[in-house]
Amino acid sequence: MDKARECQKHGKAFGNMGKKAVCLISGGIDSAVSTFIVKDKGYEIYALSFDYGQHHSKELSCAEHIAKAADAQRHIIFPLELHRFGGSALVDDLSPIENHDINDIGRTIPSTYVPARNTVFLSIGLAHAETLDADAVVIGATAADYAGYPDCRPEYIQAYQQMADLATKRGVEGRSVTIDAPVLALSKAEIIRTGLKLNVPFASTWSCYRGQQQACGTCDSCLLRLKGFKEANAKDPIQYAALPDWY
Amino acid sequence: MDKARECQKHGKAFGNMGKKAVCLISGGIDSAVSTFIVKDKGYEIYALSFDYGQHHSKELSCAEHIAKAADAQRHIIFPLELHRFGGSALVDDLSPIENHDINDIGRTIPSTYVPARNTVFLSIGLAHAETLDADAVVIGATAADYAGYPDCRPEYIQAYQQMADLATKRGVEGRSVTIDAPVLALSKAEIIRTGLKLNVPFASTWSCYRGQQQACGTCDSCLLRLKGFKEANAKDPIQYAALPDWY
Repeated sequence: MDKARECQKHGKAFGNMGKKAVCLISGGIDSAVSTFIVKDKGYEIYALSFDYGQHHSKELSCAEHIAKAADAQRHIIFPLELHRFGGSALVDDLSPIENHDINDIGRTIPSTYVPARNTVFLSIGLAHAETLDADAVVIGATAADYAGYPDCRPEYIQAYQQMADLATKRGVEGRSVTIDAPVLALSKAEIIRTGLKLNVPFASTWSCYRGQQQACGTCDSCLLRLKGFKEANAKDPIQYAALPDWY
Repeated sequence: MDKARECQKHGKAFGNMGKKAVCLISGGIDSAVSTFIVKDKGYEIYALSFDYGQHHSKELSCAEHIAKAADAQRHIIFPLELHRFGGSALVDDLSPIENHDINDIGRTIPSTYVPARNTVFLSIGLAHAETLDADAVVIGATAADYAGYPDCRPEYIQAYQQMADLATKRGVEGRSVTIDAPVLALSKAEIIRTGLKLNVPFASTWSCYRGQQQACGTCDSCLLRLKGFKEANAKDPIQYAALPDWY
């Protein structure tokens, strides 16, 4: 079967056949849906995850499931000792994860903010993209739900793109490595609806900030996820230790 | 002795007392002189080096000497497995280091280019700066000698600054983390002259791309260093296995 037919069969855009995308996969919903959006466009997927001393290392086994489900050519789990710097509840043993009311989430920079995290992740993704001669680095940043994180805003992604164009061999040659944040402008409900259409394996995603056996159902991340499923009129397939009364 | 007097005694600018700078120290000349320039301005030095599988790991012991000589408050050697991606002679066992004529260096992107290296290093420096609430990240990028590296150009540093201002908590609060490349516009000879004035321990710096007992005296980096010392009318205190006839 030739490539054009193979694309048609899978309903993929032929224009992107053979193009490579480095997809940053955290194990959460946003990066999983972002990966499947790019896969649906016909890109070859090169999965990249980071082992950065996060409490919720369950994310990494979920990331492996997602990469397999997305037919990734390769999945690199990159060790990154960010905990040497401390400075966030997600990597610092001393700070507990705080609970907030669902309506207060995103108003200030939360204690779960990892310093310059997206900048570090995108930069290592960019290095990987250069060695692969890949066309894009894909990140699951979302502006809607995480207003409190400065590095999830559209103007940040734009500035990163401009910097990347000046930083790289490809940029100098006029073949930009696209910094693609396909769910940036979507609400959590829209992201979940998109993922359901694309058969994202939500049962193999992990959002909880607390690395317990089951998702806690009380941290910011669990609450945003549950709110998203509720608004998308869909059932979250994972198990929770507790559920909020509004769900 | 109060802080103002202590500053005067050491000839330091009082305005910067208590300010912190994360200095990326490679073990080479450019980052060593950059560190001493910032130290001379009165900043507290937080040294950061990367163990990224480089052939010339001798750089790292030099980086330790330089950090000590600069009275660094702390020196973190951050492991970074960039060699997982391959793609450069400096981290890839298969590619030999090429020799070039001194006049050809900088005309094209050399095989020693490490993909997105400065972007990765600055980003981890930025993460460290955020956790320390530091005022600057200092990099020894030089535009003059390394015209072949896209991420050593002034427009790259400017674009990185704009991105960093949008990426960070400090940036959001209007207290920019300065991306400082103090030797960016200097020639190698000017960098060496500046370093001699500031008592940079050049005997504890390493520039050679080949990780042998002595510097080779034939790779691009050795040639640029030797040319710099020659133009600065100074003697390079390190030993070379061979010297070019023009030195």
